[in-house]
Amino acid sequence: MLAEIITIGDELLIGQVIDTNSAFIAKQLNKIGVSIYQITSIQDDKAHILAALKDAERHVDIIILTGGLGPTKDDITKKTIADYFNDSLVLNTKVLENIESIWNQNVGSKLLQVNKDQALVPSKSQVLMNTLGTAPGMWLEKEEKVFISLPGVPYEMEALIVNEVVPKLKNKYNCPYILHKTLLVYGLGESALADRIEAWEDALPSHIKLAYLPSLGLMRLRLSTKGYDAKLLNKEVQKQIDAVIPLIKDEFAGIEDKDGSVEIVIAKQLTKSGRTLAMAESCTGGAVAERFTVNSGASAYFKGGIVTYSTQSKINVLKVSKTDIEQFSVVSAQVAEGMARNAQELFQSDYAIATTGNAGPAKGDSNAEVGTVFIAVATRDGVYSQEFNFGKLRIKVINKAVNKALEMLLKEIFKN
Amino acid sequence: MLAEIITIGDELLIGQVIDTNSAFIAKQLNKIGVSIYQITSIQDDKAHILAALKDAERHVDIIILTGGLGPTKDDITKKTIADYFNDSLVLNTKVLENIESIWNQNVGSKLLQVNKDQALVPSKSQVLMNTLGTAPGMWLEKEEKVFISLPGVPYEMEALIVNEVVPKLKNKYNCPYILHKTLLVYGLGESALADRIEAWEDALPSHIKLAYLPSLGLMRLRLSTKGYDAKLLNKEVQKQIDAVIPLIKDEFAGIEDKDGSVEIVIAKQLTKSGRTLAMAESCTGGAVAERFTVNSGASAYFKGGIVTYSTQSKINVLKVSKTDIEQFSVVSAQVAEGMARNAQELFQSDYAIATTGNAGPAKGDSNAEVGTVFIAVATRDGVYSQEFNFGKLRIKVINKAVNKALEMLLKEIFKN
Repeated sequence: MLAEIITIGDELLIGQVIDTNSAFIAKQLNKIGVSIYQITSIQDDKAHILAALKDAERHVDIIILTGGLGPTKDDITKKTIADYFNDSLVLNTKVLENIESIWNQNVGSKLLQVNKDQALVPSKSQVLMNTLGTAPGMWLEKEEKVFISLPGVPYEMEALIVNEVVPKLKNKYNCPYILHKTLLVYGLGESALADRIEAWEDALPSHIKLAYLPSLGLMRLRLSTKGYDAKLLNKEVQKQIDAVIPLIKDEFAGIEDKDGSVEIVIAKQLTKSGRTLAMAESCTGGAVAERFTVNSGASAYFKGGIVTYSTQSKINVLKVSKTDIEQFSVVSAQVAEGMARNAQELFQSDYAIATTGNAGPAKGDSNAEVGTVFIAVATRDGVYSQEFNFGKLRIKVINKAVNKALEMLLKEIFKN
Repeated sequence: MLAEIITIGDELLIGQVIDTNSAFIAKQLNKIGVSIYQITSIQDDKAHILAALKDAERHVDIIILTGGLGPTKDDITKKTIADYFNDSLVLNTKVLENIESIWNQNVGSKLLQVNKDQALVPSKSQVLMNTLGTAPGMWLEKEEKVFISLPGVPYEMEALIVNEVVPKLKNKYNCPYILHKTLLVYGLGESALADRIEAWEDALPSHIKLAYLPSLGLMRLRLSTKGYDAKLLNKEVQKQIDAVIPLIKDEFAGIEDKDGSVEIVIAKQLTKSGRTLAMAESCTGGAVAERFTVNSGASAYFKGGIVTYSTQSKINVLKVSKTDIEQFSVVSAQVAEGMARNAQELFQSDYAIATTGNAGPAKGDSNAEVGTVFIAVATRDGVYSQEFNFGKLRIKVINKAVNKALEMLLKEIFKN
């Protein structure tokens, strides 16, 4: 089963907003056996929307549109869909009741005509009730093809996908099982990894597809397949994983969780073992902590974090030894280890990670070379650190430091 | 001048990676007068890439592809482009020298044949030298249309866009001037805002386009236009802004910076006035701090931040009064104000923001209703806080709290 996602909104095409909706939808659809053929972002323009619908209809079975369903004049998706289906808009009283109920609970002011008009839907559509907002989702069918229109507000769209779209699609189609397994590999470049596993890759059965996903300091190696026998596919892919792991023994760091990346693997392990984590960040500016706190359930294991940009705040807030800073400089193993130890103590956590370095472009509070980063890990058994040089480009230094900190933590928590 | 961005990679279509490249490219191209007609994400599949190139060529002048230029077998973009141009790949010695130089500086191990093969480019292409990676950018022309192929690694792509693509496009085309101005409006819903400014909106000249961008607690109202007389366009748009501001006087919070959002406006004002900022976050889990630290230059005004998830860490790390917590609960005005004051003192900053609340789904360390959030602002003149209820949905509560905290800070710093 194939789908296309069409996201509508000028804000996407001028780069004012990053399209995060498509990745969410793609993930959810993949889980029920629907593959995404294409993601297309287009303007709030009638002719363009019509052309995109026609193009998509030629290639796929399921077309999901997001955006352009608001109450203002720049929102034209609903009328355009009605035109595409030679249909007209009719008032849906259940949607109107939902709008009135949301209005009374959240807004208080008078309900305007433009809000009432949000209860107008194409007569041929089934409504997907949006209990979180005033723009209803819509489901239309045409010769075995399904057209789904959803609001662009992420949490409204997400709730509709999970509660309405996925169950209805599962009910309508007999979809295959799609399997992705991603291996996390540290310390090998893309070509070196490919060279190492070449014989294994060449011998992969044709229905198992391999992809290399390089990022800074981390390679992800993805095996993908689909079919109707989930048990067999899992067995086949596992056989391939068992065969490749010995080839990358020292660099292999684990299997990525299907819902996320390294930090999810760490989060699950910490939650399972009842252990906790804290952070003290300098050059990574909170980016390591943010990788954890963005996911719900973080409070189970994440005790807290401190971002200390300046030397003074390392002394005042983190109580790092002033002597160490004077003797070894603020970018040093001693300071990184002090930061980790003190964060662990302040937050009373089992583990703590600390970063201190010079991400550039200027040298800042230290004389360390641009790119120098120390990362420390504190455990109940002690503290250790490593020194790195991540090059001259600020964004690269920060991201490499984040990835390396996660790698060190991942390896540490799976030791015990 | 119209462009289409085609991003290539299965990882985008299974939702494993969010496409951030397109927004970056769109923003940079808009600055030089190139409008984006469409953004298309497709699979690493030869037939699909060829079809997308053909489609794009019918609609636009400039086609920018990213991704699929790596050294491994799943990277097929370069060969496909050569096929599209009935061309063959030839060795470019300058690219090979660049690859060898990067290899010697960064890798150390033996250069493999697959890496040397990255120096093969279509004979009809001009090379855009990628000094940050081994995959070269390529520029091809066909009957006044330009095809540009770039690596998908964000920082490599970004450097090539800024240093190579933008100057070459400016040189080739006489592009119009594109102007976007976005007003930040707090405290009015989409329809209420539209109702308030209806007469003004209806009287807008047809070449100035208006868009409403709602997010949680914040409305962005964007005016867009383009043409060849930059001065005149700026004057016309400014006239419209001057006319609309009196209609939204109490809710208007400023003009969004062209490179970013509220936090950039705040950052610039703090940097300009030499004032500094610190943060103590509970329910927002570091998300407010992250909005600042993700941008370079944050160290000029951002002293640091503390994320205290647990009650214990509020006492241990932030030194919030235990009596206040016992008497008023951890979700209270007293605790929020204590957190802000102590963060200000610990980090010795001019301003500090604090959040404490219950984002749900469970009640956590406090008996406060899910959705209750207190936000406090500490200034050199004292501290104040406000209580909010942001509803029952976790993601909505967190994002509304972040937006409200930024709003309170924005209003505060522009007071002085």
